Amino acid sequence: MFSRLCFAGRNLLRNESPQSTNTSPRITPQPSPPPITTNIHQENVGGTTYFYPTAANHQLTPSSTVNTTDNTFVHIASSQINLSYTHPGHVYPGPASHVINMQSKAQVSAAFFMQDELRNDILARNEIVNSIENDSQDIPLEVENYHSLCLLESLPLHPKLPLPSSTYRATHAVTGVKYCLRRLHGFRLQSTKCMQVVDKWKKLQHTNIVQLREVFTTKTFGDNSLVIVYDYHPGSQTLLSKYFASVPETNGYTDPFAGEARPFSHKSSLHRTAATSLLPENEIWSIIIQLSAGLRAIHQAGLACRTLDPTKIIVTGKRIRYSCVGISDIFTFDPNQQNQLTVLDHQQQEDLLALGKLILALACRSLQSVQRDQIQSSVELVSRHYSSDLRNILICLLNTNTRRSVTEIMPMIGARFYVQLDALQAQCDIQEDELAKEMENGRLYRLLVKLGCINERPELNLDVTWSETGDRYMLKLFRDYLFHTVTEDGRPWLNQSHIVQCLNKLDAGTMEKVQLMSRDEQSVLVVTYAELKHCLDQAFSELVAASDGTV
Amino acid sequence: MFSRLCFAGRNLLRNESPQSTNTSPRITPQPSPPPITTNIHQENVGGTTYFYPTAANHQLTPSSTVNTTDNTFVHIASSQINLSYTHPGHVYPGPASHVINMQSKAQVSAAFFMQDELRNDILARNEIVNSIENDSQDIPLEVENYHSLCLLESLPLHPKLPLPSSTYRATHAVTGVKYCLRRLHGFRLQSTKCMQVVDKWKKLQHTNIVQLREVFTTKTFGDNSLVIVYDYHPGSQTLLSKYFASVPETNGYTDPFAGEARPFSHKSSLHRTAATSLLPENEIWSIIIQLSAGLRAIHQAGLACRTLDPTKIIVTGKRIRYSCVGISDIFTFDPNQQNQLTVLDHQQQEDLLALGKLILALACRSLQSVQRDQIQSSVELVSRHYSSDLRNILICLLNTNTRRSVTEIMPMIGARFYVQLDALQAQCDIQEDELAKEMENGRLYRLLVKLGCINERPELNLDVTWSETGDRYMLKLFRDYLFHTVTEDGRPWLNQSHIVQCLNKLDAGTMEKVQLMSRDEQSVLVVTYAELKHCLDQAFSELVAASDGTV
Repeated sequence: MFSRLCFAGRNLLRNESPQSTNTSPRITPQPSPPPITTNIHQENVGGTTYFYPTAANHQLTPSSTVNTTDNTFVHIASSQINLSYTHPGHVYPGPASHVINMQSKAQVSAAFFMQDELRNDILARNEIVNSIENDSQDIPLEVENYHSLCLLESLPLHPKLPLPSSTYRATHAVTGVKYCLRRLHGFRLQSTKCMQVVDKWKKLQHTNIVQLREVFTTKTFGDNSLVIVYDYHPGSQTLLSKYFASVPETNGYTDPFAGEARPFSHKSSLHRTAATSLLPENEIWSIIIQLSAGLRAIHQAGLACRTLDPTKIIVTGKRIRYSCVGISDIFTFDPNQQNQLTVLDHQQQEDLLALGKLILALACRSLQSVQRDQIQSSVELVSRHYSSDLRNILICLLNTNTRRSVTEIMPMIGARFYVQLDALQAQCDIQEDELAKEMENGRLYRLLVKLGCINERPELNLDVTWSETGDRYMLKLFRDYLFHTVTEDGRPWLNQSHIVQCLNKLDAGTMEKVQLMSRDEQSVLVVTYAELKHCLDQAFSELVAASDGTV
Repeated sequence: MFSRLCFAGRNLLRNESPQSTNTSPRITPQPSPPPITTNIHQENVGGTTYFYPTAANHQLTPSSTVNTTDNTFVHIASSQINLSYTHPGHVYPGPASHVINMQSKAQVSAAFFMQDELRNDILARNEIVNSIENDSQDIPLEVENYHSLCLLESLPLHPKLPLPSSTYRATHAVTGVKYCLRRLHGFRLQSTKCMQVVDKWKKLQHTNIVQLREVFTTKTFGDNSLVIVYDYHPGSQTLLSKYFASVPETNGYTDPFAGEARPFSHKSSLHRTAATSLLPENEIWSIIIQLSAGLRAIHQAGLACRTLDPTKIIVTGKRIRYSCVGISDIFTFDPNQQNQLTVLDHQQQEDLLALGKLILALACRSLQSVQRDQIQSSVELVSRHYSSDLRNILICLLNTNTRRSVTEIMPMIGARFYVQLDALQAQCDIQEDELAKEMENGRLYRLLVKLGCINERPELNLDVTWSETGDRYMLKLFRDYLFHTVTEDGRPWLNQSHIVQCLNKLDAGTMEKVQLMSRDEQSVLVVTYAELKHCLDQAFSELVAASDGTV
């Protein structure tokens, strides 16, 4: 290694002048090695002093199988990182073969970092969540356990609900988690009995339903408001805006609740659909499977959706979720209602009819298609363009003469369940592979933070020698080796895999040796990564102890 | 901020001595600020000189909405990181509400890093993939396009196959991807016609099947060998070792192919099963769904599995996959075979019988249960302990008197498809949230690497002033601010959120100002993060240019 790489100090020497005209701080070249706190064997070869730790120092870390050869240093490409040290689990071994073939070749070449699409998706969602709170004067600073309210929309939550309503994003004061708050203005709860049905909704947990978390009344807004707290799914669209509305293509940055949620029969939606091409059948089936999955969970819990329309169903990526659940149950609650079960059964049948209409509208790509006089010709359109299974589902769901159940459509979905399962499993595989790549960056980042906190630290309390002697000195030379290595002809040697490899060896504390040269090139320290790791742990513990000093 | 936090320089001053007895390098205190390359307005307040960039410098970055107040510095908890700057997408906003409730509370508290279970799982798998190659002298260095072969097992691949065989992990020379190589020793391919069926297997891509990638013959091993290349799934177990064999509990580090794969009717497996408790029914259903999904894909592709037994089906986490596919087709290939379709149909019916036996064995937790004289009582055991659907599936599959199809069991699986879909969607949600956390670490890591390459760099070619003047000087003071800030009473101030926040602002290049103090505390530089970002980009480009110098 030494024949190929040498330290920066070589060039520094040529310009040696303690009283440089340059006013910025210069690091004084250091004439002799610092006192090392461990036993050292030294040797002078051709004018250069080599320091070797004595055998005792090899006991620093308890490693079972280690590689003690240090002749493996070459200028390596990242695909050839030498892995023969103790903690191979800490190195991402490259994409798994079953995943690499799922992705396009271009994406895989970005070997060490995340797939762009997934990354941009997550970035966009993070951006929406972190977007700056609007400064409306009307919004209180805190509402019960929630702060940092941000108005998302002010649209009516339900067609039959004449009250104004608002939707906010808000942060929970204790957990810091962001939620979606739906507020009904000027709403007085007639009876707390409806909390029974709210409790049912709170218990219903399903990946195709936006979870209802809690319901409370509050006067913080200056009126009697009812607030319903849901999970927040940033970057969502409604089914209406995704498949029907004539809005510009979403770029992923559109706020889920801002503006597009027009009522079911909105005029502008009715017209443009002729120009829209029909959806691929597999996309419709994916929606049907998810909608039926959520609806099955709702009905099984002894509840009814009651807001099964494209303004109340949201799409996040490929996931479909029922939103605004339970609102109808709260505001139409009648404590004197007899025959609760009959009412529920009726509502569930209405849900199934609504599901049929929604699927028909999706298949025809037109909200008009579900109007009474259009249904016949719409179903015929579906028969012409799609499989008989899809037509049969519509006939089953739209037939209000018989009592139906959501599970009756399962035979018509048939083997498409397998297709959906395969797609989800593939998604899990890709995500797991991305995670394997990314998780190691956090560890490397923390190592660099530790080194940063130690190196060049000018003090530790009154001990001026703290950052420049003993353990810290070795870490400083290691830092030079890590970042400031130059090539034989004096050019900076910028090699990401060198840095990753050295940090991994440091973290693993291998018995592999590294030659650290002082800046004046007069002394060479030969230390193992195990010793460097010990130095780092030691120095950082001292720092932590000092910072805790008076706390 | 300044009243609470001050720079490390304070303590350094008390020990000012240019010719310290300490031999390690000391940073010379710097009497006056360095020449800044931009226009500066300066002001002296109580003996401290404040430098402000003039208005012109504010134009450095084109930011639309920025926060220019710098009075928001407080000792902040990570949940309160100030996000009012330009690139909020680059900050993980904390776990999503729908995910936080899926995880146990203890796991969520590790807010910024990955869930332990998932992390350990991935670490274990990485470790297996990266494990050191064994040094057997018999293994050639390269076999066709593969190198770094590592013997995983030497067990027979098929009960009817008398030839010795070996399984290796190997790395593809071009892509660096690891694959699993199954080698049949001394095997001569009778006819290349069987490559037609191999092509069918190569095209069959399914998340419940170990993908066959290629087949080749080679003399590199010193004999005529046939090598079948599959995807490699580290950390897998066979169904046999997971559910039947009396082996010690796996710790996730057991090699998938090492040793446990005993033949179907191995004695030691027959005995202990009485003591083993029955599996929960939902676990059996998850296996049935996955096995039927894979088998359906195989049969649909005009193929038959032919090795549907617990030694040839592997489990990775919760995923079930058929392994060793196609081997039977290759070694029993008869080019003179008439009635290919009849044979295929027979083989598919055999697959269904084998699937039935496997499910029965799983439900009874005993391989003995599928022996002819035991089947009756085994099915009765299932009837007593499990649902009638499970019993009906067994009766359907075990009935060899009628022609059956794998899709016939779908109605008996029924709504359990929904359960499986819900579980997979939940897994996707958790993984996506983990990814959102981890992906930012890579970005922060790269920023620190850039800073590390610039700061304290002793040279750039012959320019001794490189790392200590102008842009680099500001970055050096920023580094001090980032890592070396001390509290009022001089203790190190170690705060991860301070570092994350500052790096994020640097990356975003916000117009927020930061006060950087020289080490002698005599000068204060007031700069925006936008300017610091400009400095970083500038300095790093120079470094890259210098490193490319002669290339």
